[in-house]
Amino acid sequence: MSGKIITISREFGSGGRFIGEEVAKKLGFSYYDKNIIHKIAEKSGMSVDFIEENAELSPRKGLFSYAFIGRDKTGKSVEDIVYEAQRKVILEIAEKGDCVIVGRNANYILREFPNTINVFIHGNMPEKVKRICKIHNLNEKQAEIMIHDIDKRRKTNYQFYTDQKWGAASNYTLSLNSSQLGYEKCMELIMNCLK
Amino acid sequence: MSGKIITISREFGSGGRFIGEEVAKKLGFSYYDKNIIHKIAEKSGMSVDFIEENAELSPRKGLFSYAFIGRDKTGKSVEDIVYEAQRKVILEIAEKGDCVIVGRNANYILREFPNTINVFIHGNMPEKVKRICKIHNLNEKQAEIMIHDIDKRRKTNYQFYTDQKWGAASNYTLSLNSSQLGYEKCMELIMNCLK
Repeated sequence: MSGKIITISREFGSGGRFIGEEVAKKLGFSYYDKNIIHKIAEKSGMSVDFIEENAELSPRKGLFSYAFIGRDKTGKSVEDIVYEAQRKVILEIAEKGDCVIVGRNANYILREFPNTINVFIHGNMPEKVKRICKIHNLNEKQAEIMIHDIDKRRKTNYQFYTDQKWGAASNYTLSLNSSQLGYEKCMELIMNCLK
Repeated sequence: MSGKIITISREFGSGGRFIGEEVAKKLGFSYYDKNIIHKIAEKSGMSVDFIEENAELSPRKGLFSYAFIGRDKTGKSVEDIVYEAQRKVILEIAEKGDCVIVGRNANYILREFPNTINVFIHGNMPEKVKRICKIHNLNEKQAEIMIHDIDKRRKTNYQFYTDQKWGAASNYTLSLNSSQLGYEKCMELIMNCLK
C-alpha cells in the first residue's frame, strides 16, 4: 500500500525542483530527483553518464533521428530501455511510502496511484532568466537559450512517452506560477492540498 | 486604482462558476459572470439575446464562416464589436474594486492589471458528466456531447481573441482539478493566494 505522493513537473528556471525539495523537508517525505539515476542505471544496465544525459531529455535529436538509433534484438531502442527502467524505479519508489518525486514524467507513470498530487510549476520568463543566470553563471541571452532548449527537450520527451501535452493544466492536480505567487506560497499551497 | 481581482476560467461542468461565486461571497467581493450581458448589450448596441449567444462562444461556426459574416463599414464583424464591448465592460468592472469575474477571457483582458489572480478550473470527465446530467437533466451521452461542444467553442473563442492556448497552465496563476481536490478545497486554495 503506497503513502502520499507528490509529483512535481516544472519549467526550467521556475524553481520547481527547489520547491519540491523544500516541501519534502517540511513534510518529512522522501525526496527523489536526479538522485534516482543510480537506480535507473542499475536496472537498465546503462552507465550513469548515459542515463544523466538521456533519461529525462530523450529523444534528444528529435523524432527523425530517433528512428535510426540503435535497437536491441526485441526492437527496443536504448532510450526505450532507459525509459522502462526509469518507469520501474518510479513505481518501486511510490510503493515505499510518502515521497516527493521531481520530473521524469512521474505524474503520468503514477496515474493509477491513489493519494497522488500532481503539481506543475511554471513561471514568467524574466524571473526564470534571472534565476538561471545566477545558478549557472550565464548572461541573459545564454540563459534564455538554455531555458528554451531544456524545456523543448522535456516537452518532446513528455509528449513522446505519454501522448499528453506538456504544460496542459488538465494533466495536473495543481499548476502554479512561481513568479507571481513566490516560492513560499507555492510550498504552502501544495501542502494545503494534502490536508 | 483597482482592487483585488480574481478571474476564473473553467472547463464546462468543472464547477468553476460555482466556485467563483462562492469565493466572491466568502470574501465579500463583487461577482460577475453572465450578469454583465446587459452592460455589454448597452455598450455594443446589440440585443441581450445576441450577446448571450455570441459573447463567449463566438466565432460559433468556426473560422471559415467567420470570414463571411456581416461587417460594419470599419470592417469589423458584429462579433468583433461584441467582443470589444465586452472588453471595455470588463476593464470598467476591474477599475471599480475587489471582484471575481468568471469567463469572458478576463484573464487575458486584464493581463496588465496588478493584483490579479487568474484561476483555471478543470476536472475529470466522469465528474463533469455527472454534474451536467444533474443540472441540465440530460443522460450521460448528451452531457458528454454538451461538454465537448461548449468547451470547443470556448477554446476557439479564447484562441481567436488571445493567441494563447486555452487550458495551458502558463496562462494562469493557479490551475486546479476540482474533481480531485473538491470544490471546498479549490475555494480555500484560491483565497489562500490572496493572503
